[in-house]
Amino acid sequence: MTKKVFTPGLIILFWICIIKFGTAQNTVSESRNVLHSVPFNQVNINDDFWNSHLKAHAQTTLQVCISQMRDSTKRISNFEKAAGLKEGRHEGIYFDDSDVYKAMEGIAYSLVNNYNAEYEKLLDYWIDLVAKSQQPDGYLNTYYTLSYPNERWTDMEKHEMYCGGHMIEAAVAHYRATGKKTFLDVAVKFADYIDATFGPGKHHWVTGHEEIELALVKLYDVTQNRKYLDLAHWLLEERGHGHGRGAIWEHPKLGPEYCQDDVPVSEITDIKGHAVRAMYLFTGMADVASEKKVPQYVDALNRVWKDVAERNMYITGGIGSSRTNEGFTEDYDLPNKTAYCETCASIGMVFWNNRMNLLSGDAKYADVLERSLYNGVLPGVSLEGDLFFYVNPLESDGDHHRQRWYGCACCPSNVSRFMPSVGNYIYVKGENEIFVNLYMRNETNMEFGESMVRLIQKTGYPWDGNVTFEVSPSQASFFSLKLRIPGWCKSFGITVNGNTINNPETKNGYIVIQREWLAGDVVELVLDMPVELVAAHPLVKENLGKRAVQRGPLVYCVEQVDNKGIDLDEATFGQNPVFSLIEGTGKLNGMILLRTESQQGNKLIFAPYFTWENRESGKMKVWIDYDEGTCLYKTAQ
Amino acid sequence: MTKKVFTPGLIILFWICIIKFGTAQNTVSESRNVLHSVPFNQVNINDDFWNSHLKAHAQTTLQVCISQMRDSTKRISNFEKAAGLKEGRHEGIYFDDSDVYKAMEGIAYSLVNNYNAEYEKLLDYWIDLVAKSQQPDGYLNTYYTLSYPNERWTDMEKHEMYCGGHMIEAAVAHYRATGKKTFLDVAVKFADYIDATFGPGKHHWVTGHEEIELALVKLYDVTQNRKYLDLAHWLLEERGHGHGRGAIWEHPKLGPEYCQDDVPVSEITDIKGHAVRAMYLFTGMADVASEKKVPQYVDALNRVWKDVAERNMYITGGIGSSRTNEGFTEDYDLPNKTAYCETCASIGMVFWNNRMNLLSGDAKYADVLERSLYNGVLPGVSLEGDLFFYVNPLESDGDHHRQRWYGCACCPSNVSRFMPSVGNYIYVKGENEIFVNLYMRNETNMEFGESMVRLIQKTGYPWDGNVTFEVSPSQASFFSLKLRIPGWCKSFGITVNGNTINNPETKNGYIVIQREWLAGDVVELVLDMPVELVAAHPLVKENLGKRAVQRGPLVYCVEQVDNKGIDLDEATFGQNPVFSLIEGTGKLNGMILLRTESQQGNKLIFAPYFTWENRESGKMKVWIDYDEGTCLYKTAQ
Repeated sequence: MTKKVFTPGLIILFWICIIKFGTAQNTVSESRNVLHSVPFNQVNINDDFWNSHLKAHAQTTLQVCISQMRDSTKRISNFEKAAGLKEGRHEGIYFDDSDVYKAMEGIAYSLVNNYNAEYEKLLDYWIDLVAKSQQPDGYLNTYYTLSYPNERWTDMEKHEMYCGGHMIEAAVAHYRATGKKTFLDVAVKFADYIDATFGPGKHHWVTGHEEIELALVKLYDVTQNRKYLDLAHWLLEERGHGHGRGAIWEHPKLGPEYCQDDVPVSEITDIKGHAVRAMYLFTGMADVASEKKVPQYVDALNRVWKDVAERNMYITGGIGSSRTNEGFTEDYDLPNKTAYCETCASIGMVFWNNRMNLLSGDAKYADVLERSLYNGVLPGVSLEGDLFFYVNPLESDGDHHRQRWYGCACCPSNVSRFMPSVGNYIYVKGENEIFVNLYMRNETNMEFGESMVRLIQKTGYPWDGNVTFEVSPSQASFFSLKLRIPGWCKSFGITVNGNTINNPETKNGYIVIQREWLAGDVVELVLDMPVELVAAHPLVKENLGKRAVQRGPLVYCVEQVDNKGIDLDEATFGQNPVFSLIEGTGKLNGMILLRTESQQGNKLIFAPYFTWENRESGKMKVWIDYDEGTCLYKTAQ
Repeated sequence: MTKKVFTPGLIILFWICIIKFGTAQNTVSESRNVLHSVPFNQVNINDDFWNSHLKAHAQTTLQVCISQMRDSTKRISNFEKAAGLKEGRHEGIYFDDSDVYKAMEGIAYSLVNNYNAEYEKLLDYWIDLVAKSQQPDGYLNTYYTLSYPNERWTDMEKHEMYCGGHMIEAAVAHYRATGKKTFLDVAVKFADYIDATFGPGKHHWVTGHEEIELALVKLYDVTQNRKYLDLAHWLLEERGHGHGRGAIWEHPKLGPEYCQDDVPVSEITDIKGHAVRAMYLFTGMADVASEKKVPQYVDALNRVWKDVAERNMYITGGIGSSRTNEGFTEDYDLPNKTAYCETCASIGMVFWNNRMNLLSGDAKYADVLERSLYNGVLPGVSLEGDLFFYVNPLESDGDHHRQRWYGCACCPSNVSRFMPSVGNYIYVKGENEIFVNLYMRNETNMEFGESMVRLIQKTGYPWDGNVTFEVSPSQASFFSLKLRIPGWCKSFGITVNGNTINNPETKNGYIVIQREWLAGDVVELVLDMPVELVAAHPLVKENLGKRAVQRGPLVYCVEQVDNKGIDLDEATFGQNPVFSLIEGTGKLNGMILLRTESQQGNKLIFAPYFTWENRESGKMKVWIDYDEGTCLYKTAQ
C-alpha cells in the first residue's frame, strides 16, 4: 500500500506559446560562455565501424522497437485507450510509456540520419495518440489515466515524471529533426503543468527515478524559457530533505539512497543506489550547473565522479555491480560473473561524462565516455541489431544470452534512441576552440564564430590509431584544435601539413594546436595502439592475480567459440604474453582479433568484448589468470 | 709480492702446421648440429641508425685507437722493444698488450666493412711486431718479456692468458678478413705453447681474467684442431678446485670469487665477482658446451643467466653495480648514481647472450643482447666516435664525463673491436631455419643448405617497429623464417605477400613462418612500439616509486640540456603520463625524442640513454619519481 502523498485538484492551465523558439539548427545560445557539443545532425558519419552499427540500428533495431511497441506488447495500445480510441485499463508495467517515448526519440534521430517518410508518418500518428492521451491540465501518463485516475502523484517512485521526462526528450528530438511543434507543444503543456503544480510554495516532489531534470534543461535549451531550467534546479534541490514518499522509501533494503534521496545533491560524496537513476541525476545536475553556475554541484559531481571512476567502475565502463538494487554496493566490489552493468547505466555514463566534459573541457571524462561507449553500450545490442543485453557480466559460463526483448524494456529502447545520436559525442565547440573527443571517420561543417569550419576526419579507429584531419575554415581563422589523447594512449606523434610538432602543447588531456587555420590544412595524429594487459586496483579482490586485455578503446575477452576445447578457467597468461593481431571472420569480419599463447601452451583467441554472444553461446571471460613471474623490469603505468 | 707459482723451463716447440684450415668464407662446420651466427662479413648493413655509428667508428674511433696505441701511449712501443727494435723496460699496465690486440681486431673487421689499404699496411706492420715479440717457445707478453722475463706464470691474475686470448681473437679476425695467415701463425704457435705447458699431467692454471677460453674455441673453429677446444674445456675445469694462485686470491675483499674461482664452473648458481670476467667465462662455457655437448655447463649457464637477468641487471642491460670489484654485489642491489656498468661488461653480455641464443634457439637471450647492445654498449662511445665511457651510471649530477682515453683502456678498445662486428648478431642459421635476431636495414646472401638465400631487410628500427623482408632463395626452398618478437613488444601483426597470417606459430619468442619460399616473397612485420613506463622489481630499493621510460629497445633518460631550469630531482610523473614523439635536432638529428609533462606541470624531454653526455654536461636520470595515484585500471605486464 502506498501512502497517498498529494492529489492535485483540477488545474486548468491555458497554455500560451509566448516563449521564443530557437531554430532547429541553432541549438545553442551563443551568450552562454560554456562548451557545446556539435550536434549529430551537423556530423556526417562515414565510418566502417560505426556505420555497421548505425545500419543495424536503422534496418533492424528501430523496426524491432516499433514492432514491440505496437504489435507484441500493449504499449501503443495503452495510448490508444488513453486517447479514447479503445476501451480498457492499462496493461503492462507502470513505466511502459517511457519505452514508447524512447522509441519515438530514436525514430526522430533516425529521420535526420536517414530520412524515411514512413517513419515520419508513424511518428505523426504516435504523436497524435500522445497528444490525445494528455489530460486537459497537461498531465500525461497512461498508467494512472487508464487505471488509477485518482491516484496521480501518490507514489514518488511511480515514474510519472520519469515518463514525462522521456516524453520531453522525444518531443525536443522530434522538433529538432523536423521543425514541427506538434510534439513539443505536448511537452511544453506537460512541463507547464508540472511547473504550476510543483515548486516553491506549491507541492514538494522528489523524482523516484530521475530523468525529467535533464529533459527540462533540454526543453529550456530549445525554448529558452528559463522556468524549465529553474524547475529542474528546484527538483534537484528537493532531494535529500525527507520529502520522498512511496514504497521504495519504506523498503528495508533500498530506502532513500536507492534513488539518491539520502542527502541533498550538493552534499553528495559517494555513489549510491540505482545506477541509471544516479547517472540521470548527475547529468541533470551537470546541465543545471552549466547553465546556472552552481559551484556546489560541480564540487559534488567531481567528488562522486572520482568515486565512480576510481572505485566503482568496471573496465568496460559499466557500473552497478548488484542485481538487488540494480546499482552500487561497496567500493571496489566488482564481481565479474554477477556483474549487473545494466546497458542503460552505460548509456547514462555516456550522458554524464559528456556533460562533465562540457563543464570542464577535461578529456578524462571523454575517456570514460569512450570506455563506456565501446564496452558498456555497444554490447547491449547484437551486431545485427536484433537482440539485446540488459545485464552485461564480464564472465559467463555460457548461460547468459541476448534476448529479443525484455518485460522491463528500458535497455532496448534506450539503445535504440542512443545509437543514432552517437555523432553528438565527437566534437565540442568552445569560444575559440574545437575539441575532438571521439575518433571516427566523418565530415562536419560547423558554425564557428564568424566563419564555418569544415572538418574531414579519416581514421581506421578503433582498429588503428592513425587519424587525419583536413581543417578548412571558410576564411583564415585563428583558433585551437584540441585533439583528445585517449586515456589508453601512452604515446603519440603529430604533424601539421607534414611537419612534426616538436613542442606540442597538451592541456587537460588534449593536444592543443593553436594557429591560424587555412583551408586545406592537414593534421596527422598517430596514436600508438599496442595490446595492453591491464591490472585492476588490488582492492578489487575478484581480479587479484588476473589481467584483462585492452587494445585502444576496446576491452577484449575470450569466448569459447574461438577457443574450442580449452578450459578457459584454467587458462593463464605466462610472463610477458605477446599478442598477434589477426583478422576476424564471419560476423567479426573487418575486426581485429588477438591471438596469444597461454602458459599452458594453448593458443588463446581474444575478441572485442562488445561482440560476445553474437556467435555460439559458451563460456566468456574478460579477466584471465596471470602469473606474476620473476621479471626484473615490467611495464607498469 | 706474488708467490712464484711455476716457471717453465725452456720449451722448444717445433710447430708444424698440420691443421686443416677452413676457408675464410666457410666459417662454420656443417657437421655440427647447432645454430650458427651468420658472420658480419656476409651482411651488408645499409641502415641509417647503425651506419652513423659504423661511420663514426671507421672515421674516428679506429683512428683514436691507433693514435693512442702508437703515439699517446707506450703500447706499440712495448712491442717495438720486445721485437728488438728499441731498448727499455715495459711501460704502462701489465695488460696493455690486450688493447693493441683489440685495436687490431677492430681494424681487421673494419677491412671487411670498408677496405682501407693503409689500415691493412698498418696491421701488417703491427703483426710483424707481435710476431717478433713472440718468444721462440711461443710465449707472448711484452710486460713479462721486457720487465720480468723470469717471472712468467707467477701470478694467475696477471692477464698473460687474457692478453693471449685477445691476440688469438685478433689473429682469427685478421685471417678471416684477409685470408692471410701471418697473424694466425702467431696465435697457433702461442696456443700450442699453452697447450704444451698446461693441461692434464702438465701444469695447473686458473685464468685470473677469463678470455682465452672463448678465443681458443674461435681458434678451434677456424683451424678445426680439436686440441684448442679441449684446452679451453680443461681451462674451464681448472676453476673452483683451489688451484688459483696470485695476489687476488689472497685479497681480503676480493678472493677467488672475484675471478669466478670459488666453485667449479658446473656448480655455478649465482653471479659473483668481476662482471667482465664472468661474461667472458660464460661465453667460453657456452662455446665449449655447444661444441662438446656439456649438459652440466648448460644447466649452470641457465641458472646463472636467470640470476643475472632476473636479479642483477640494470634496465640498460648493464651489469656490475660495484666499483670495488668492478662487479656484482647482492641480488637487486642496483644503485643508479654509483652504478658501475662497465662498457666491457655490456659487450660481454652481448657475447654471452649471443652464445646462449645459439645454444638454445631462444629469443629471450637475444632480448637481453639487444637491451645491452642499445643501452649498455652504445653509450660507451660518443656519437662522433671520439670520446668514451668506461663506467655507465644511470644517474649523474653532471660530474660524469666522457673521456678521450683511459689509463685502463679496455673499454675504448673493446668498443672499437665490437662495433664493426655488430652484423654478427643479426641472423642465425640452423638446420632448416633462419632466425632474425636484430632488426636493422641490411642485405645478406647466405649459404643455406643446397641454395643461397638472399634476404633484404628494410626498417626504420629502432625508431619504428615496421620491418619488411624480401626473401629470395636461389631455388624454391622449404624452411622456417623465425622472426624475433622483441621482449619489449606486446603485440604485432604479420603478413606474407600481403596476406595477414591469422594463425602465426610462435616458438621460443620467435614468429615461425614455415613454408616453401620463392624468390621475391615479402614478409611484413609490424611491431607495436609505444612509449612504455617500466617499473623495477620491488626489491630494487633504489627504484621504488620510480619509473623508467622505454620505447622499443631504447631506454630513455632526462638530461639537463633538454630540460633547462627544471630540477630533475623533483620531477615526478603524474598518473598516466602521455608522451609525444618529437624529432631530435643537432647531434640528435634523425632520432626520436619524447616529451611529456611532469606532475608539477613542467615539460620534460627524454632522449635515448645512449646519447647522454654528448651535448652539454649536466644532470641525467633514467629513473624518475612516479605518483602511483588512484587509478582503478592500470597497464601492468
